[in-house]
Formats: sequence, structure tokens, C-alpha cells
Amino acid sequence: MSTKTSISELDQICKKAQAAKVELRSIIKSKKNDALKFSADFLHKNKRKLMEANSLDMDLANKKDLQESFVDRLELNEKRIDSMISGLDKIINLDDPIGKTDRPHRSPSGFEVSKMRVPLGVIGIIYESRPNVTADASALCIKSGNASILRGGSEASNSNSVIEECMQQGLEKASLPKHSVQLIKNQDRKLVSEMISRVKDIDLLIPRGGKSLIKVISEEAKIPVLKHYEGLCHVFIDQDADLDKAVSISVNAKTYRYGICGTMETLLASKKIASSVLPQIKSELEKNGVEIRGCQETLKIIDAKAAKEEDWLTEYLAPILSIKIVEDLESAISHINTYGSGHTDSIISENTSAVEKFFNEIDSSSVMHNLPTCYADGFEYGLGAEVGISTDKLHARGPVGLEGLTSQKFVIKGQGQLRS
Amino acid sequence: MSTKTSISELDQICKKAQAAKVELRSIIKSKKNDALKFSADFLHKNKRKLMEANSLDMDLANKKDLQESFVDRLELNEKRIDSMISGLDKIINLDDPIGKTDRPHRSPSGFEVSKMRVPLGVIGIIYESRPNVTADASALCIKSGNASILRGGSEASNSNSVIEECMQQGLEKASLPKHSVQLIKNQDRKLVSEMISRVKDIDLLIPRGGKSLIKVISEEAKIPVLKHYEGLCHVFIDQDADLDKAVSISVNAKTYRYGICGTMETLLASKKIASSVLPQIKSELEKNGVEIRGCQETLKIIDAKAAKEEDWLTEYLAPILSIKIVEDLESAISHINTYGSGHTDSIISENTSAVEKFFNEIDSSSVMHNLPTCYADGFEYGLGAEVGISTDKLHARGPVGLEGLTSQKFVIKGQGQLRS
Repeated sequence: MSTKTSISELDQICKKAQAAKVELRSIIKSKKNDALKFSADFLHKNKRKLMEANSLDMDLANKKDLQESFVDRLELNEKRIDSMISGLDKIINLDDPIGKTDRPHRSPSGFEVSKMRVPLGVIGIIYESRPNVTADASALCIKSGNASILRGGSEASNSNSVIEECMQQGLEKASLPKHSVQLIKNQDRKLVSEMISRVKDIDLLIPRGGKSLIKVISEEAKIPVLKHYEGLCHVFIDQDADLDKAVSISVNAKTYRYGICGTMETLLASKKIASSVLPQIKSELEKNGVEIRGCQETLKIIDAKAAKEEDWLTEYLAPILSIKIVEDLESAISHINTYGSGHTDSIISENTSAVEKFFNEIDSSSVMHNLPTCYADGFEYGLGAEVGISTDKLHARGPVGLEGLTSQKFVIKGQGQLRS
Repeated sequence: MSTKTSISELDQICKKAQAAKVELRSIIKSKKNDALKFSADFLHKNKRKLMEANSLDMDLANKKDLQESFVDRLELNEKRIDSMISGLDKIINLDDPIGKTDRPHRSPSGFEVSKMRVPLGVIGIIYESRPNVTADASALCIKSGNASILRGGSEASNSNSVIEECMQQGLEKASLPKHSVQLIKNQDRKLVSEMISRVKDIDLLIPRGGKSLIKVISEEAKIPVLKHYEGLCHVFIDQDADLDKAVSISVNAKTYRYGICGTMETLLASKKIASSVLPQIKSELEKNGVEIRGCQETLKIIDAKAAKEEDWLTEYLAPILSIKIVEDLESAISHINTYGSGHTDSIISENTSAVEKFFNEIDSSSVMHNLPTCYADGFEYGLGAEVGISTDKLHARGPVGLEGLTSQKFVIKGQGQLRS
């Protein structure tokens, strides 16, 4: 298919999303929840059909030379479909932010001023192999009153189409506009460049996938992008740390799961306490097969590979840990603000003023005390579902829930006042 | 001076701003207010020096072929300097958002989660001829704990330098980093392109000036831009409007001041009420010398110029008003969402459900009831000082006060919990 054809297809999709957006603006809460409930029912009824579509995708993927982890993310078995369905139920139970008003007050001229939470409008989502994103992301958009345009990976296209159908059937049954959720079926790569420059059609873009996808999109996009870039997370063992906590938290922060963004990549230890904790941490990590790369001071205490400068800048997402011994709290803060990615960093300490200094001076989306960084997650924070973790500072930072998909407008109620 | 030299100058400025940013993170409220108080004192003491510097600027400007309004904005007389100083006092009295925590709650695993308001870091401000922006904008940045890099218009360079000096002296006297406020003195235009691509050095850019400046900057910037683009504001006279309010509000919305972004540019009137209000509105506007451009239906009621399609898209910022008669509320909403700029739109009506529909469906940063759109202003809303009015939907929308210059971070306090 020519690029011209695919762009006119995108035009159509954007036009339908715009129409859906307008309708969604005045939809009441219960209807949105009905749509999610019905969509969950349709997913349940179409489980077999979805598994068949997924088998097609898996067959094609297995013929290609794709990474095992990639193919794993593509797979939908009964358990994964059930978890997708229960994900929708969880979204139904979330508090709806739309229409809430904030800080009402009277203006100097006597009129009433408040801020009302409103949908953003149209949200674009670009993602890779996981088909569950089609359900999760579109459901979060429905709940927050937004139309969504989804561009999934070509490898998941059969699975994604069935999920889109179920979501749209749910919308129709609840008398909501079917085109509130639309999947771009055309796999022309030029469509992505086109999509990310549609300032008038798409209010926010959320890329979900690997670093290279996100890098390309955020560099080229003309529309606002909510991005999760990198999680180069640190744990700092302060001189006033509890030794048991220092060991258990460090080990958990590294070994809970290697591939998540909250995993610890660099451990910093105060020189006053390093020799009391590093040997035990090493022995625990060794049992888990974690490779250690230490600074020169570390190597005086434990046997390990020597770390290079680039190790402090590397998000391994693998059973590898870099360890650095630092002079004091001040040096730890400076190391983290220099080499970190502003994601999540934790201090282990029993000293309140050290913790306070760490909290104030570390410039990251989450700062933690006596906890492993792997807790960085919207569900764990009790926010309900998350659409991603933002490493940006503007609009939404850290785990992003429904509120990140909304905007606010000023609502001003007067009685005929005139400005003089 | 070569561009290479000016870029190395910018490097120096950014480096100093980064250092100031780190110090500012842990500064207590009272010190920031001290700095503002001392800066106000220095401005007061240096009033004569500032007026002399401004005379130099004015002399040079008068020799060039500049617009009268441009030269007027450049001028600093005693009254304007006093108002600049009292502006700093107002900022001192504003509530400091930094360090405030939001929504503390316990996570499912029992640790404590809250969100803390923090400075953004370094804020860049690019503006045109008004020297008062140098004081206002840098003071708002100090109060919100941010370092600022200011790039004013070349015409105001002598005035801006004196103001920068006063701000820096105030900072030093309060033992805050002097380089929390820095003016780029080099007028090489390439510096602007360089400044707006410094993703690592500048967290947010605020352009203040005409549409063409803002357009160029937002199209080219790699760093986030908080922009005020256009104010194409509407007043809609609903069929259930109070006739007296309809006339007085419409006239006030147009004639309060022609050059502000909240001025009404298009008046929409329901066809059921148009003939009862338009003649009087016309006669009042005529007294003020306002030119009317009406749709075909309008011309059947009052004598006026015929409006063209482009009139509905024009922000006149002048004594010109376009008038359109619409079928009903629905058509008014659709007109505003199609032709408006998402800034501020008002409905005049005594019908609660019409007002509610208008509030829900108009996609603008401010929606008003029985008020003239010219009230769109942070001071009028009771927000204290404003750094500008954002027509973006993300981060900050509408009049932007101190909070728009901040971010939030998650603060997570644990007791050694481990994730399993």
C-alpha cells in the first residue's frame, strides 16, 4: 500500500477520534464504566478467538529471528487474558477524576473561580509487542474521557485487532462512540512519523516500549510526549544505616526482577560502613548469579570486576551491579544527580536529617527511605492502574495514573461584573 | 563577536545556573523572601541609575524605525519602576509552593507515599522590549526555587543590565547564589537557537512576547515550552440571556483594552435574541470607535461591514469585532471549538443547564458565565502574580502562577519492606 493511502487512512482515523472526543466530553461516569464492563465481557466471550489470533501472531513471530523475550511478551495464554480482563475491572473501580473541581475561591472582584478536571482529548499510544497494552491503555483512556489512537507492533496485529473489536463492541453497547478506541492497522512505518507530527489531532503521545523506540519518538515528535526514558536507580547505604536493612534492601533491589525500570543498577556505600556490609551483600548476590563491578575502594573489600566510568552510566537490566564507595552523603547525592536518570533513588539510614537532605537534594521522580527501588510502581504506590512511569518533570512525573491523562480548565462564574 | 565565543559564554551561564539550581533546592522560604526584599531595596536605591540606563535605550530606540507601541513598552519612568518594586513585594506575599506535600497515603505494602512540590530547576525566559519582565520573571523564579536564564530584547539591554545587577545584589545579601538570576548580554541571534535546544541545561522555556516570537520558538525548541499563543476569545449571548447583562458584558469585553489576550474578538448571538441586543451593542461600540464585521444575518439587523471566513479566525487586538448569529447553543459551541484558540470563552445566560453544557463542552483554558472575557488574568482570578497565560493543555493551562514553575516528586518512607 502506498504511503499516500496510509496517510489518508490516518486522516480518517483522526477525524473519527475528533468526533468521539467531543462526545466523550460530556459523558457521565456510569456510562464509561458500563463500556469497560461490557468490553471485559466481550473479551471473556471471545477468549478462544483471541487465542487463535494470537497463535497466528506467534507462528509468524517464531518464523522470524526475534528475541525470546520479545516473543514471550507477545504470547497470550488463558492466564494472561484473564489478567487483562481483571485489569479492566480494576480500572472500573478507580476513582474518576473528570469533572472534579479544585480550590474554589472568590476573586477580588467577587466572582467564583475554580479549576475543573477535564479529558485531554485524543491520546496516541505507540507500543511494541505486548497485546495487553491494547486493552489496558485504551481502557485508561476511556475512563479518563479520552479518545485513543493505538499503534501496536506489527507482530501483534492479529491479537490487537480482536482486542480492539471487543473494546469497540463494549463502547457501542454502552452507547458510547465506537471510535473512542481505534487501532491503526496499516503497518507502514511512515505513519508513525506522520502520527507524531499531528499537533491538531493528537493532544498527547505515550510511547511504550524499549529505549530506542522512545528516543526516536521524543526527538522527532511535534506533539507532547509523556515518556519513560531510563531507570538508572541507586541505593545509598548511609553511614548511619541499619546493617541488616542495608543487606536485605540492597539484595532485594537488585534481584527482585532484573528487567524492570526500578531495579537497582548502582549501589553506593558510605566508606564508614562499606566493609561491614559489602561482604554479605556480595555473598547474597553471588548466590543469585549477579556479577559485581566495583570501584577501586570496593575491590579492596571484596573480590569483583573493576568498574569503568561507563558502568556508572549503564542501565544493565541484567544480573549485573556496579558498586561505588563514597566519602559521605554529600558525595552520594552528587554521584546520583550526575549519573542517575532521575527515576528512583533510595537511602538506607536511621538518621533523620540525612534522609531529609537526601529527599530534598536528589532530583528524581521518586526518592525512597529504607526501601528497595524495585517498589517504584503505580500499583505499589496505591495509585491503581498506571499508564507508565514518566521521567519527565513537566505535567506528570513518576508513576502516571488517570490524572496524567487529564487537563484542567478554569471555571469562572460571575454575576455580570465588568472590568474597569 | 563570533558565534563560537557567544556559545562558550552560554556554556558558562548554563554551568553557573546548574550550580545555583542545586543550592536553591534546599533553601528555606525566608531566605528567598529576604532576597526579594533586598532586590526591591536595591531597585529603589538605583532608581536614578536605572532611569539613566533606560534613557540610553530609549535614545537608541528612537533613532531606529520602531513601532510606537514597542518604544512605549520599553520606557521606564518613575511610576513604572515603583510598580516593578511593588510587584516584588506582591511576590514576597505569595504562598510558597515548594516543599508542600500532597495526598499522603499508605501503600498496600504499608509504606508511606506522598508527593512533594519541588522546583523545576533552571527556567529560560525569552522576551521582547519590556524591561519589567527582567524583575517580575526572575523574582517568580527565585520564589519558586528556580535559577533563571533571561534573554531580553537587545533594545532594553542597558535597562535589563541594571535590573539584573539589583536582583543579583539582593541574592548575595541574602546569602543566596548570585547566579540564580543571569541575563544573557550577548545579542547574537544564534544564541536563541542554541538556548532552546539545551535539553540538559534548561528545564522549561517561557517565551514572552508577540505571536511570531512564540511561533518560531515553539516550533524549533527541543526543551519544553510553556506558551501563550493566541487569545481568540468569544462571548456567546444565549437565548436565555439577561438583555442588560448581554449588552454591558459584550461592550466591556471588547472595549476594556483592545491589545490584551482576553479581549473579545468574536461575538456570537442566538438568533432568538439577536435583534433585541445587537442594535444597542452596536451603538455603544460605535461610541468607542469599534468597527463591526457581521455575518449575513447580522447585516439584516444592524448596518456593518460584511465578515469574511477569515474574520472568524482573526485575533484583531484592535477596535474591530466580528459578530455572528448562530442557530442555538449547540452551534455556538461548535463555532467556538472550531475557530477559537482555546483561551477564554464566555456565555451570557440565565439558564443553568445551558451554562453547564457550555462549561463541559467548550475546550478552552477558561470558561466564563456572565462575565467579560477580559477578566482572564491571574491577578483577577486571585492567583497572585502570573508568569503568563498558557494556551497549552499539558502541565499548566490558563493563567500560570508559581505552581506552574514547579514539579512534584514522590516521597516514599519505608521500614525495610521487601518486594516479593
